[in-house]
Amino acid sequence: MSKQPVNRQWLLARRPEGAVKPCDFRYREGAIPTPSEGDVLLRTLYFGYDASQRIWLTEDGGYMPPIRIGEPMRAMGIGQVVESHDPAYAAGDLVEGFMSWQDYAIVRSDGPMPLRLLPKADYPLSWNLGVFGVGGLTAYFGVTDGLKVKPGDTVVVSAATGATGSLAGGIAKALGAKKVIGIAGGPEKCRWIVEKAGYDAAIDYQNENLDARLAELCPEGVDAYFDNVGGDMLDTLLLRMAPRGRVLICGAMSSGYTDVKLKGPSNYMRICTHMLTMQGILLFFYRDQLAEGAQQLGRWVAQGKLHVEENLFEGFEKAPELLPTMFSGKKPGKLLLKVADPT
Amino acid sequence: MSKQPVNRQWLLARRPEGAVKPCDFRYREGAIPTPSEGDVLLRTLYFGYDASQRIWLTEDGGYMPPIRIGEPMRAMGIGQVVESHDPAYAAGDLVEGFMSWQDYAIVRSDGPMPLRLLPKADYPLSWNLGVFGVGGLTAYFGVTDGLKVKPGDTVVVSAATGATGSLAGGIAKALGAKKVIGIAGGPEKCRWIVEKAGYDAAIDYQNENLDARLAELCPEGVDAYFDNVGGDMLDTLLLRMAPRGRVLICGAMSSGYTDVKLKGPSNYMRICTHMLTMQGILLFFYRDQLAEGAQQLGRWVAQGKLHVEENLFEGFEKAPELLPTMFSGKKPGKLLLKVADPT
Repeated sequence: MSKQPVNRQWLLARRPEGAVKPCDFRYREGAIPTPSEGDVLLRTLYFGYDASQRIWLTEDGGYMPPIRIGEPMRAMGIGQVVESHDPAYAAGDLVEGFMSWQDYAIVRSDGPMPLRLLPKADYPLSWNLGVFGVGGLTAYFGVTDGLKVKPGDTVVVSAATGATGSLAGGIAKALGAKKVIGIAGGPEKCRWIVEKAGYDAAIDYQNENLDARLAELCPEGVDAYFDNVGGDMLDTLLLRMAPRGRVLICGAMSSGYTDVKLKGPSNYMRICTHMLTMQGILLFFYRDQLAEGAQQLGRWVAQGKLHVEENLFEGFEKAPELLPTMFSGKKPGKLLLKVADPT
Repeated sequence: MSKQPVNRQWLLARRPEGAVKPCDFRYREGAIPTPSEGDVLLRTLYFGYDASQRIWLTEDGGYMPPIRIGEPMRAMGIGQVVESHDPAYAAGDLVEGFMSWQDYAIVRSDGPMPLRLLPKADYPLSWNLGVFGVGGLTAYFGVTDGLKVKPGDTVVVSAATGATGSLAGGIAKALGAKKVIGIAGGPEKCRWIVEKAGYDAAIDYQNENLDARLAELCPEGVDAYFDNVGGDMLDTLLLRMAPRGRVLICGAMSSGYTDVKLKGPSNYMRICTHMLTMQGILLFFYRDQLAEGAQQLGRWVAQGKLHVEENLFEGFEKAPELLPTMFSGKKPGKLLLKVADPT
């Protein structure tokens, strides 16, 4: 395997204030790192975009250590092993996991999530970052284990065109939900939700009254709500939950994940008076079940029950400019950047 | 059974603004009501005090219809059947359930909770409103089913001198919790928690730094938090929960249950990043298991594992003046008013 002479990198130049901007990163051509005991040296092929990248950019970092100034930006990615000092991986293997915006990255399997070895498959390699990656698996464990969706349930999903939300509806339908409703902004996205992503109905929160539409579509209340948005939307939904309803806290897109202190859900006492359950989802806690989840997702895709949508760009130079679009009306589906082909 | 000539009543005179006051009620001597088909006419013997009475006084009513101006104030109570038009009850039976502040009340078994027939027992009748009533059963199902406390858990309970909180700690210990910590206001209450209610430690939130004390007492985080307080205390606890920790939303004493809009927990995204579960508790959902719960509580009381504390007053005229003390530093244990003896 021939190494490129340079290692292109996008480093964090400064901690973003408010919305993340391309100029928060700076380009550098560095040396290809030398792996030590236990390290795996990868050539990166694809980067996925996730809203949680904005959280990693805060001082706090959220559930991960924060990215430091001067470090390459962290991202989920697909890579190919160049040199391995970990017996679990061999040169040439294709893997998915935590990487960073550079051509060559060193990864260790003792991190929060080990690198996942990718099987030879007849679907596009990039699907391992989407339907079989963080988005798909979060939707899978969120709907099955978190929300425990069962036949007959009425299910609502916010940010329903996102990498996770676009799959959560189909998963709920596959489990027998009676009615699955997606929330998104604008008529075009709402049409996509119903025509492509398999939702029974859509609510355009920008142009419709969310509460009135929920009352109309869910006269007996919402059994399960997959929340990617938080804020006022979560508060509105809390008042529309059926007794013993379940709420999954998956994200808070309404906050933009900036450093701004979040507004808590003021209607949270509905948890008490309607005996609701509000639960979180973080894939780290499912690390031993990921392969099983991906297999089930694969069966549903093969059966035509899940619609896979990619929003694929190409070229290492585009890495920073795509990140802000996560928070400002990107197209439906998984946002991805291809930077190289496997050998 | 001889009927008294009059039916003393405390009616709601006006909807309280802010803290409830005795002058929000007015006294009247009315007629003894005449029961119809399906009705049970009771003579009331004891009234229990519950923070949720303040919620029933709001326009909204919370999880029950609001009490209307001019109606007798609703309360949990113990009564004796005078005349029954419901085959499940006979004259002379002692029962516990939803009643109101009057000597004679008509109750129907098709309400949210049927009247509970009280067994002949060798413990005080009033215990059916405390350890075997709403407080004890809420603590029981909250700790066992809601929080799923298991051996080795670190458990925190707020408002730990209350009718529910004072029992939740002992129940958690009986289930094998490693460390059970109560939160209360003032050194006297904190002493009581440890010396009487069986807690391992107490935190005086009025005189100590709650967060620092939690860090010291729970270095590995809190596995289960029984929240009776809400507000800033809930926010502080959310940051101290262990991964996969469970929070039970039982009450929000910090709000005083007035009409004031609650402040939601701004740290609720910890639910996502630490994969917490936040769940509610409302006894209506356990109506078929209440007898079983009371039996288990009885066994623990007999084994000396639960401390029963009553804060008992006597005299129908005191009904309104005791209600505000629920929110302003009453003594530990269950607040009760005795108004008559059974025949």
